[in-house]
Amino acid sequence: MTTGVTSDPTGLHRVLDERVVLPQAAQRLDTRSELWPDEVRIRVERLNLDAASFRQLERKHTTTDGRREGDAVRAEVLEIVAARGKMQNPETGSGGMLVGTVEAVGESSPLGLSVGDRVATLVSLTLTPLVIEDGLARWDGRSEQIPCDGYAVLFGRSIAAVLPDDLAPELSLAVMDVCGAPALTARIVRHYHAPTVAVIGGAGKSGSLSLAAARDAGAARVVGVVPHQEEADLLTGAGLADHVVVADARDPIALRDAVADAVGGPADVTVVCVDVAGCEGGAILSTAERGTVIFFSMATSFSAAALGAEGLAADVTMLVGNGYVPGHAAYALELLRAHDGVRGLFEGRAGR
Amino acid sequence: MTTGVTSDPTGLHRVLDERVVLPQAAQRLDTRSELWPDEVRIRVERLNLDAASFRQLERKHTTTDGRREGDAVRAEVLEIVAARGKMQNPETGSGGMLVGTVEAVGESSPLGLSVGDRVATLVSLTLTPLVIEDGLARWDGRSEQIPCDGYAVLFGRSIAAVLPDDLAPELSLAVMDVCGAPALTARIVRHYHAPTVAVIGGAGKSGSLSLAAARDAGAARVVGVVPHQEEADLLTGAGLADHVVVADARDPIALRDAVADAVGGPADVTVVCVDVAGCEGGAILSTAERGTVIFFSMATSFSAAALGAEGLAADVTMLVGNGYVPGHAAYALELLRAHDGVRGLFEGRAGR
Repeated sequence: MTTGVTSDPTGLHRVLDERVVLPQAAQRLDTRSELWPDEVRIRVERLNLDAASFRQLERKHTTTDGRREGDAVRAEVLEIVAARGKMQNPETGSGGMLVGTVEAVGESSPLGLSVGDRVATLVSLTLTPLVIEDGLARWDGRSEQIPCDGYAVLFGRSIAAVLPDDLAPELSLAVMDVCGAPALTARIVRHYHAPTVAVIGGAGKSGSLSLAAARDAGAARVVGVVPHQEEADLLTGAGLADHVVVADARDPIALRDAVADAVGGPADVTVVCVDVAGCEGGAILSTAERGTVIFFSMATSFSAAALGAEGLAADVTMLVGNGYVPGHAAYALELLRAHDGVRGLFEGRAGR
Repeated sequence: MTTGVTSDPTGLHRVLDERVVLPQAAQRLDTRSELWPDEVRIRVERLNLDAASFRQLERKHTTTDGRREGDAVRAEVLEIVAARGKMQNPETGSGGMLVGTVEAVGESSPLGLSVGDRVATLVSLTLTPLVIEDGLARWDGRSEQIPCDGYAVLFGRSIAAVLPDDLAPELSLAVMDVCGAPALTARIVRHYHAPTVAVIGGAGKSGSLSLAAARDAGAARVVGVVPHQEEADLLTGAGLADHVVVADARDPIALRDAVADAVGGPADVTVVCVDVAGCEGGAILSTAERGTVIFFSMATSFSAAALGAEGLAADVTMLVGNGYVPGHAAYALELLRAHDGVRGLFEGRAGR
């Protein structure tokens, strides 16, 4: 240790901003490679940019005649990481995750990791100190998966999951990326007796896992809502839902009516897994009195949800989808192994 | 009825937009005075603008040398209501509530109101068809309380509360305006066994009611967090909290440490009642594992809460503070009657 600063499990000791803020809110993090006693250092092999972040960068660096300038995307990622000590897109505020191998473990790290473990970080890149050492030379700037050599630091309160041997790393990563959704869905479904569960965006990654989790946790009926027939066919083929219905989730009345037509009334638990804005009203109207809406979409508007429920006199519990539930990664991987339908949707999506 | 359109309890039949949206999201509502069978018409006597909305209008119409142009504020409110058929500030998106007397009740209205009842609407003005008939001639544009003659329409799923005889209307209104907070707080506190409850912004309107509700619902210890000593003195005098602590809720570590110092650790339930941005991290860190954070502040950022909890590996349940819980207005008025401390804070606030 080169300073007298004591470490904080939240990583506060690496925040370089004048004002005291958490690492995620910080402009700049301290990326020194020496570890505080509760930290872990990872040798990075790949960064996975958050999809919204990558799309923003790609759009920004596409010429008016449609040419995608991968070099400019790469340069901007390098610039962000150099300036901030972490990969946090200043426009979208989002980060992503990383894969690597544990190269050093502080003497009082509570994470249970050993040198040599191949891991994925389950906390966002937006709060992870990161140094890129190869200039991202192996990346063409055209995909959100970035081969990378460098190092990253995990704090006492971070989370990393060891990658399982029986699954392709890409598949494990895709599952871990959304593993909070099935874990929280299962927890909420267990609060009800044989409930009806509707998953908006049921054919997607978090959606298909949430459908499987709902069933696993005792749902009597599960409904998957998808935006068009192609997804309906996919989800029907996967066999994860008792009913598959097509509806535009941004149209509250259409969504309410689609769910009601499928199961004879509103759902006890509605899980929102589509990353489009304006789904709050429909989700609320699709949910029974004393039911629960879980919002996993980052496009959710807090005020639209709060004012929407009040304006509809809807006695529903509305949850901010917390991406962390203990054991979430292991549970999601279990669901994937147990449900060929989930696995098929994940592998199909990766192939497209 | 002049049209063949059937009414929908959400008020959809009065939306004039091309796309099907709920009344709150609509650009323009149909304000015809004839009622659909499940509607109620109110003769308006006063509008209460949402505080954020009024402040925005006031700021916009203050000259560079600090002169507040009340006439311009009034003109803009008239213009908004004429154009949209409802009072929804296009900048803040917020509305407010109104007081009036029931003048007509549709034959199948489920609201239980009678002609002559003096009521306050508990759904937002942002979704309430409204016609102003007196040009707001009695309002100087300098206060969020607007004397008004005109009419408004309630839908099948709206909510209105009859004003009690034993309290000044202003006091009842101020209580009803925030009555969702104590009702939801009480419901959540009852899920825990003798919990510790922290209320951020405990000396405010929703905060003081939430402290009283927490105690009423079985909290073992209640902590009120306030931003400065003046509020601390007020809240201590009101006797609503076992501990009153001063902390900046936007500083997550300061907030965590203030709560921990007061009660020896994090709270089981944390209720956020301060309308400032950036309180998500501190609220999460102040809450125990398996605890619950209830966000009542409209300044809450959905993504800051979701990513914040994930980044901190915090297993906390986070609720979007729904302003509607059945019986919420009656419960809040009961708390006010039962707790002189709550009443004192409300009356003191109105006097300032």
